[in-house]
Amino acid sequence: MLSARQGGPVQPSISAWRPLGPDEVEVTGGLWGQRQRLNADMIIPHCEALMERAGWTGNFDSAAAGTIASGHCGIEFVDSEIYKVLEAMAWELGRSRDGDLEARYRALTERVAAAQQPDGYLHTSFGRPGQPSRYRDLESGHELYCFGHLFQAAVARLRTGHDDLLPQVARRLADHVYDQFGPRGRAGVCGHPEIEMALVELARATGEDRYLELARLFVERRGTGTLRSHPFGQEYFQDDVPVRAAVTWRGHAVRALYLASGALDVATETSDDELAAAVRRQWANGVGRRTYLTGGVGSRHQGEAFGDDFELPPDRAYAETCAGIASVMLSWRLLLATGEDKYADLIERTLLNNVLASPRADGCAFFYTNTLHQRLAGLVPDEERISPRAESGLRAPWFEVSCCPTNVARTLASVGLYFATASDSGIQLHQYGDYRVSVPVGGQRLTLQVSSEYPFEGTVAVKVIEAPARKVTLRLRLPGWARGSAVLSEEPATQGPGHAEIQRVFRPGDSVDVAFPAAARVTYADPRIDAVRGTFAVERGPLVLALESPDLPAGWSVNEIAADPGSVADDADGAAIVVYRRSPDTDEWPYLPAPREGEGEHVRARLIPYHQWANRGPATMRVWLPLAEAAAGIEGTRVSAG
Amino acid sequence: MLSARQGGPVQPSISAWRPLGPDEVEVTGGLWGQRQRLNADMIIPHCEALMERAGWTGNFDSAAAGTIASGHCGIEFVDSEIYKVLEAMAWELGRSRDGDLEARYRALTERVAAAQQPDGYLHTSFGRPGQPSRYRDLESGHELYCFGHLFQAAVARLRTGHDDLLPQVARRLADHVYDQFGPRGRAGVCGHPEIEMALVELARATGEDRYLELARLFVERRGTGTLRSHPFGQEYFQDDVPVRAAVTWRGHAVRALYLASGALDVATETSDDELAAAVRRQWANGVGRRTYLTGGVGSRHQGEAFGDDFELPPDRAYAETCAGIASVMLSWRLLLATGEDKYADLIERTLLNNVLASPRADGCAFFYTNTLHQRLAGLVPDEERISPRAESGLRAPWFEVSCCPTNVARTLASVGLYFATASDSGIQLHQYGDYRVSVPVGGQRLTLQVSSEYPFEGTVAVKVIEAPARKVTLRLRLPGWARGSAVLSEEPATQGPGHAEIQRVFRPGDSVDVAFPAAARVTYADPRIDAVRGTFAVERGPLVLALESPDLPAGWSVNEIAADPGSVADDADGAAIVVYRRSPDTDEWPYLPAPREGEGEHVRARLIPYHQWANRGPATMRVWLPLAEAAAGIEGTRVSAG
Repeated sequence: MLSARQGGPVQPSISAWRPLGPDEVEVTGGLWGQRQRLNADMIIPHCEALMERAGWTGNFDSAAAGTIASGHCGIEFVDSEIYKVLEAMAWELGRSRDGDLEARYRALTERVAAAQQPDGYLHTSFGRPGQPSRYRDLESGHELYCFGHLFQAAVARLRTGHDDLLPQVARRLADHVYDQFGPRGRAGVCGHPEIEMALVELARATGEDRYLELARLFVERRGTGTLRSHPFGQEYFQDDVPVRAAVTWRGHAVRALYLASGALDVATETSDDELAAAVRRQWANGVGRRTYLTGGVGSRHQGEAFGDDFELPPDRAYAETCAGIASVMLSWRLLLATGEDKYADLIERTLLNNVLASPRADGCAFFYTNTLHQRLAGLVPDEERISPRAESGLRAPWFEVSCCPTNVARTLASVGLYFATASDSGIQLHQYGDYRVSVPVGGQRLTLQVSSEYPFEGTVAVKVIEAPARKVTLRLRLPGWARGSAVLSEEPATQGPGHAEIQRVFRPGDSVDVAFPAAARVTYADPRIDAVRGTFAVERGPLVLALESPDLPAGWSVNEIAADPGSVADDADGAAIVVYRRSPDTDEWPYLPAPREGEGEHVRARLIPYHQWANRGPATMRVWLPLAEAAAGIEGTRVSAG
Repeated sequence: MLSARQGGPVQPSISAWRPLGPDEVEVTGGLWGQRQRLNADMIIPHCEALMERAGWTGNFDSAAAGTIASGHCGIEFVDSEIYKVLEAMAWELGRSRDGDLEARYRALTERVAAAQQPDGYLHTSFGRPGQPSRYRDLESGHELYCFGHLFQAAVARLRTGHDDLLPQVARRLADHVYDQFGPRGRAGVCGHPEIEMALVELARATGEDRYLELARLFVERRGTGTLRSHPFGQEYFQDDVPVRAAVTWRGHAVRALYLASGALDVATETSDDELAAAVRRQWANGVGRRTYLTGGVGSRHQGEAFGDDFELPPDRAYAETCAGIASVMLSWRLLLATGEDKYADLIERTLLNNVLASPRADGCAFFYTNTLHQRLAGLVPDEERISPRAESGLRAPWFEVSCCPTNVARTLASVGLYFATASDSGIQLHQYGDYRVSVPVGGQRLTLQVSSEYPFEGTVAVKVIEAPARKVTLRLRLPGWARGSAVLSEEPATQGPGHAEIQRVFRPGDSVDVAFPAAARVTYADPRIDAVRGTFAVERGPLVLALESPDLPAGWSVNEIAADPGSVADDADGAAIVVYRRSPDTDEWPYLPAPREGEGEHVRARLIPYHQWANRGPATMRVWLPLAEAAAGIEGTRVSAG
């Protein structure tokens, strides 16, 4: 059933749309082009250097040399960071064929491979003399989690055309895990799901059905109480309820969404409709009730976890970058499986407003958590010190748990592969930007150049470069935020709420233009989201905007303002809004017999794309703006902006 | 300077008002009388039984027998629970002279004393063969913390007239600590402040100035970086900034307020005005910016910590019972030191709306955390199982960290001692209820009976039982919530914003009546408290009210309602309000281009005192009620209440 072939990060054997490989789509410019260059030039080398400096890469050398017991560096899952960087490098090499990068990739792979033990086991924290024994602590040891990342790195190498050292290491390791945890092995699971989706992909990429069977066992065992008690409850690692019985996302957000991704992969390959329906149900519930406007997920710092339904505090949003990436991974699988546009909508929102917020403009520092309200101007992190994961209001170069920078690296290196898909009859454009897509349709090639300033502008031009001499279908997603008001230069054959289809014989030079209404617009929250009652947000196209203190007069913070939703307007610099300052700085008892009034000065302030915040030094920031009484007619005094 | 004498929990050598001893004030009825009976009959025996069942009391026996290394029960600070119960028993014996209780007290004391080591050290987790060594882990070992609770228990015994076994044990232990950590000892502090205030009180109760000196050293060392790095930052245990330099409450809330209490005690006894001013400044900042309407403190589950200014989410309020008790302890010290009524206001609020919320009506289960918004109906805890500290929406019999039940026990046993004070010229009534106070004034006795249904009704009668044949001053606090609108049956000599004074010659049988306006009233929050924007609360007299689901029609939860502040009214059962149901239960994307409207059915629902919630089984509950659009004229459909 399964077979190895080139492709992207996810290659189901059955899907509504066929995902593309690195040879079929190329990001040619725009925001994503810039970010891919930043990734290749800065982020990947930064990760390589910081892993080396922290001694995490060196762990493999000392493991190979037999000296690791006397000095393992970092916590027990730092191996996975090396694997995510290897995955990033593999996708990057699939795009760029850079000789220097290939040399670095091979050298790093060889250091990893040298640490593999004769029976295939490969982990720098466990199992050697003087170290804790293998698989003793499935709850927090992260062994299988690390293996999963190694498998994904190997799959990236296979899918970009190389069956060399890392895929060999991965097969030996996967065979070992099958022996240990397969049908005749121990009925255990890893505290941190990840290996499930990785094993399915390794099965798809190698044709080895045992890996799929092992993934299926891991998914089925979850929720049956094989893990010991966790202080935050069994939902922390989703061992509270079997996957097919769960109704929503819960517990540690990254774990929940990696698990859901793996469960859908298993469901797809085993035609398990009940399991697939459970994953879709959980997605609908989680997106409707437990997701931030930015697409970020995880409402609680404690346990890095989902909260209750509608518990979405902006100021304590954890919204971990890795959880956003996991959400994209899950939505991508659901989009491929169902063809439904809502999944692409969430991918767009999450990539642009959560994942893209993580790297600093220079690519050398990252947000781990992505708050929607920063009350205190952040402290500049000591660039020489490894930061706790969620300490500051500014991005940090590296973290004690540094999963996010490397996850950003592998995501940016492969991001174009999420933009479009193909079918027997044509191409589906799910994301907009500046890219070229070229696929065979009925034996001939259909090549399109997508050009736009998206997400900053709403116009998209799709130009036909090559086309078969037969009718093909061009399917364009109409983003949910555009609410059906896209204008197409051609009358679509069909237009659903989430897409338009144009069916015709195209000729080179033909073009289809789309105009989405990208003016800044006001957004309100469901009243059940208590934490943002009495506020509004501003979005512009697919971007969530934010008010940041550098755009306010000196001495103002975002904590004592209100804004008038009727004043939102676009100008040459983007969107701006009238902001009022209120509430003197007192220490009076803050509970009063009447609402406190007294908005005073006002100013017209710029709103920036949320993902750009904290690039101008320490600042306060908020996405949800308190509704000004001024909106009800109270006038203030205009001051000049700082 | 210091000398032993009878009295209450805090006996400064200099103060604006003189605190009373157990022989000077007696709670005679009302809410507090009922709770003191509940404490004596149910809570204290419950704590004794659960500590025994958990093996925590038995730790002392096996320590004495030399077998503790093979089986210490519970975490490393369970000794302190035994001490808090001993303190509760001592205060209770000061009130009741109960023979059975005295026997239980003595037996428990003997078991504790038997575990003291020859050099005075006394802790069941450290220092014996096979155990971790003493003082190796000041950050989290809690050794000095436990000692502090032993000292406070010993002080309660001294202040109730007995210099017997526990005070002897305490002196030997304090002498040992002085040797280890005094001027010629190690410059360390405990990760959990507590010993500071306990040492000052032990100094006051024994006349031993070295204990004060040791307390002073512990306060001065805090914030100088003697503790190793904590994952939540050094503010977790207030080692980030010296006490006298800090501007607000921060980090772990109980630690912060125990430390502030000890710092004020040191400041008082050493005439350190700068230190006292720092504690007052922190109180003002913390109360104005980091305190819930209930008086609860601690906005974050992670680290059981204060949040940033105005970060006060109702649904994730930690508001630990012990932090409320610590706040009362601090405010009481500040009231004694300054005579300012605002401190008594906060004591009232915190006792009635945070501390009193902890024990269940039957006294056999407790809240550890005290949320202001319960979104999910709680799970009934397994009465045979020890609960994590903040798991359920229902009270639990016991916790792995069970500081709160025993803290409630010692507080209820001594609560009357916070109600009134004396001066050379008369009596100051700070709290209202049903109690008798009798103090010497100029060699003669002034005895008053305070009678009221307070906090449920606003009328208070003060009847003179005995009086000197000279002019005395009766000072009555006018609670901040009454906003100066109290009506007194006599024209006061002076009336400030927070109190009235009546100066005259009283005769037995005279009475002064006070009427506070106790009708239900609407309260709004400072707009900087983002989490409750667009809502209001209802208070009645000193009580914060709550809406609980048993008072709503079947099938409604508090999560999908709005209420009309104009509809608040008192009826025979207390306060009630018109509540609208809104928002159908959908999984749609919850961010919308226009505010979601559509309030439908409405009902008149009862509001209950917050401290009574969760006594009718699993329920949802909220204090802050979303403002109904109905308040702006939209009408709904009336349904009958469930």
